[in-house]
Amino acid sequence: MNGAESLVKTLLASGVDVCFANPGTSEMHFVAALDDHPQMRCILCLFEGGTSGAADGYYRMSRRVAATLLHLAPGFGNAFANLHNARKAQSGVLNVMGEHATYHLRHESPLKGDTSGISQAISHWTRTSADAAQVATDGAAAVQAARSLNGQIATLILPANTAWEAGAAPVTAAPPPALRLPSAAQITAAVTALRQPGAALMVDGPALYDDATAQLAARIAVATGARLMAPFFAARARRGAGSLRMARLAYEVDLNSAILADVKTLVLCGAQRPTAFFAYPGKPSLPEAPGTAVLELADITMDIPATLAAMADAIGPLPNLAPDARQPLALPALPTGALTLEKVGATIAHLMPENTVVVNEAITSGAPVAGPMQTARGHDWLVTMGGAIGAGLPTAVGAAVACPDRKVLCLSGDGSAMYTLQSLWTMAREGLDICTIIFANDTYRILHGELLNVGATPSRNVARMFDMVDPTLDWVALAQGHGVQAVRVETADAFNTAFAEAMEAKGPRLIVVPC
Amino acid sequence: MNGAESLVKTLLASGVDVCFANPGTSEMHFVAALDDHPQMRCILCLFEGGTSGAADGYYRMSRRVAATLLHLAPGFGNAFANLHNARKAQSGVLNVMGEHATYHLRHESPLKGDTSGISQAISHWTRTSADAAQVATDGAAAVQAARSLNGQIATLILPANTAWEAGAAPVTAAPPPALRLPSAAQITAAVTALRQPGAALMVDGPALYDDATAQLAARIAVATGARLMAPFFAARARRGAGSLRMARLAYEVDLNSAILADVKTLVLCGAQRPTAFFAYPGKPSLPEAPGTAVLELADITMDIPATLAAMADAIGPLPNLAPDARQPLALPALPTGALTLEKVGATIAHLMPENTVVVNEAITSGAPVAGPMQTARGHDWLVTMGGAIGAGLPTAVGAAVACPDRKVLCLSGDGSAMYTLQSLWTMAREGLDICTIIFANDTYRILHGELLNVGATPSRNVARMFDMVDPTLDWVALAQGHGVQAVRVETADAFNTAFAEAMEAKGPRLIVVPC
Repeated sequence: MNGAESLVKTLLASGVDVCFANPGTSEMHFVAALDDHPQMRCILCLFEGGTSGAADGYYRMSRRVAATLLHLAPGFGNAFANLHNARKAQSGVLNVMGEHATYHLRHESPLKGDTSGISQAISHWTRTSADAAQVATDGAAAVQAARSLNGQIATLILPANTAWEAGAAPVTAAPPPALRLPSAAQITAAVTALRQPGAALMVDGPALYDDATAQLAARIAVATGARLMAPFFAARARRGAGSLRMARLAYEVDLNSAILADVKTLVLCGAQRPTAFFAYPGKPSLPEAPGTAVLELADITMDIPATLAAMADAIGPLPNLAPDARQPLALPALPTGALTLEKVGATIAHLMPENTVVVNEAITSGAPVAGPMQTARGHDWLVTMGGAIGAGLPTAVGAAVACPDRKVLCLSGDGSAMYTLQSLWTMAREGLDICTIIFANDTYRILHGELLNVGATPSRNVARMFDMVDPTLDWVALAQGHGVQAVRVETADAFNTAFAEAMEAKGPRLIVVPC
Repeated sequence: MNGAESLVKTLLASGVDVCFANPGTSEMHFVAALDDHPQMRCILCLFEGGTSGAADGYYRMSRRVAATLLHLAPGFGNAFANLHNARKAQSGVLNVMGEHATYHLRHESPLKGDTSGISQAISHWTRTSADAAQVATDGAAAVQAARSLNGQIATLILPANTAWEAGAAPVTAAPPPALRLPSAAQITAAVTALRQPGAALMVDGPALYDDATAQLAARIAVATGARLMAPFFAARARRGAGSLRMARLAYEVDLNSAILADVKTLVLCGAQRPTAFFAYPGKPSLPEAPGTAVLELADITMDIPATLAAMADAIGPLPNLAPDARQPLALPALPTGALTLEKVGATIAHLMPENTVVVNEAITSGAPVAGPMQTARGHDWLVTMGGAIGAGLPTAVGAAVACPDRKVLCLSGDGSAMYTLQSLWTMAREGLDICTIIFANDTYRILHGELLNVGATPSRNVARMFDMVDPTLDWVALAQGHGVQAVRVETADAFNTAFAEAMEAKGPRLIVVPC
């Protein structure tokens, strides 16, 4: 058994059986080993940003680590942006990056690059296997690292000769170390804080994934009289009918200052301290009111459900939730006439099946569409967590691989989708049940807004840099070129028809919504 | 004048007037400053790999540094692969990367990332501006760094507040430091070595760019009796009628061992020591015969023309070149019948105008096409220097911007083109005179060859990872989706017609060649 085979067997023995791949020559023995193990599902992405984004989406929906297979330095570079998004989503991802044979690295060959350097710029854990006999152990350590602390980016760099030389026996990854908990004193202090007037409990991470944990947080809030809050961006959250109502932060720092104005004590459980997405001249980086007591009870790397359980224990019997603690089911009527974003949202809400996974990277188009969906059938909601656009389509790929029995709905801006449009081909290749809606406004609309904030009056260079016109993109052609059936709609009625068809069919569809 | 304005004025004063851009919010003040300076040509790329690849092609054809404008950490990540290629091409590129305001970096915001770390993994020079008053000085230093040592990757990281706070007066970049030369003793030793039996002079870099320098190298070789050689991959080389004949290395290490078998002394001037592209079990990393004396006279960062001139001085009067030192003009007849790669090469050779810039990333399809082009009208030949596929289309964009009066011909494999297909839109937007030929074999054919070298018998996972079938890509639709007129040809006659039309028309065209 060579090192590559020992790694594939180690991954399979450790429960990693999906590999989003874009291989090159230095990974050839690993490819051969994958070929000998059909129980590893290898999914080709025609660009590496598709692999890392898919691994992110896969982890968010399955809580399981997938592997990516990446070519040395530049191939990893192409995966970098969506590894950044995955890192901010706290997704566990295991990258296997090829490398030149150890003895070849002393020479200057075209693909020689700083494999460690680029990995360390984004990964929580990086290791280069020193020899073939270590590869199985290193692989198991990498799996463990990816699963640790609620999910990490782990990168194993595999010099070619460690893949082809004789390896050791496969190793099964050890479970990750137990997650940390706040001390009993910290729990008591948090409960006391929540009982003060003007207290809020902000939850994120695992507190938003499943109903039992979210319910616990909601009941703690009711018991203590605190306001239950959630951040604007969450890696995964339940939405629609039956989901728990929470006060959500907004994107803009000014709005968040207003939302948080009355909060005197903010207890964070799995949530990061609210922070402006960017700094702006004369605006604060932190939106909370001056003097707010911020209690960072448990960060995202800690045991969030157990922290909430410990708080519940400290409180005593918790009240049940009132019926209005949850969103009702209220489906809007199917709209007609001219197409608007709100009508698109209404149609989606009317037709989207229970338990759809929604991936939203529609940026400025997203909010009007999301509004009517608040009372749609219950669904999961995933957004781009690191602000690096180009995550939407790949995340949808990963979510669909993780949840083959659920419909995936991918809402994307046209600018965002252009970064990783190759994911459309993977949707077609794998027959993934994804309906992608491209909101085609032919511009980076959010940048026009940001420029206005700066006080500039746009002229020629801004138009040249912000607007995707002259020519406009033909998204129907782009989708069909990748093998995905597509249609452009001009009216609400046409959208109703196209979306109904997409919901009834299995497999990838794309609908272009001009806006 | 704010820091951003001081930077734009510094760039313009220093002769940097092209900016390949993909901006985001943290770059908004820089965008506003660009907008106030229409003499800066801002060229939008819909993915950052397009910006860095275009800057590479622009430098190779103009010897001028272009700027790229990149969003913080993940945006730079998307540019990484083609910065790797640019670095290996010794191209000068100036990256302006946005960053959060300095005071905002203490908080965890979604786009916070390791801007320095990822830059340092690829750039020769990285600096983060500490305050607005330093931005002009830093910008001038960055331009100088990008121009130094025959071309470097220089990255200036611009925290948002250094862009909007008050800047200093613009600064004109100082000329780069003088390039190093070998010592007189080293020159004498090299000339002595070249006079030994079995000596070869291998040149690269500036020795291949212009005829005067290449001619000098050729005459030195004749005078000393040495063989004139060139590497397989060169950032830019003259080819076709009138170009100097040189013995070129091959891609495969075994072939190179045969080519170098008789070489007893190898003098390198601008060329790197020949090295296998990858290591393979049982094959050498270095192809030269054991015992070969390798004299590294001048590396690519030194003054190559002056080194050759010094050698000429040491030799004394040089002989003139025989007529057969140069390639003759010999245009193949227009082929007919079934389409083959050789016939595609013949048609190109027959029709391609003088001084075409050819960008070749056709990988396995490239060699049969290139054969008949050896005696076509004189042209320049650019290849992907770092082995990271996805450089072809962006390099063609940059070359076309640099050479608006020359036809650019981009030869690309389908697998390669998929990495950065968004560059097609930039070709359309800018009306660039580029004819792209996509060789559509629906597979990563080179990987099939490499896998055979490994001795594996391909099974399902290999087919899933190497072949772009089920569905195949429709390149005509993909091109049209980006606004580029396209046609697929099935016969040599159809290719003749399509290629002739493309050569006569101005502006982007794409031809799909199934193979």
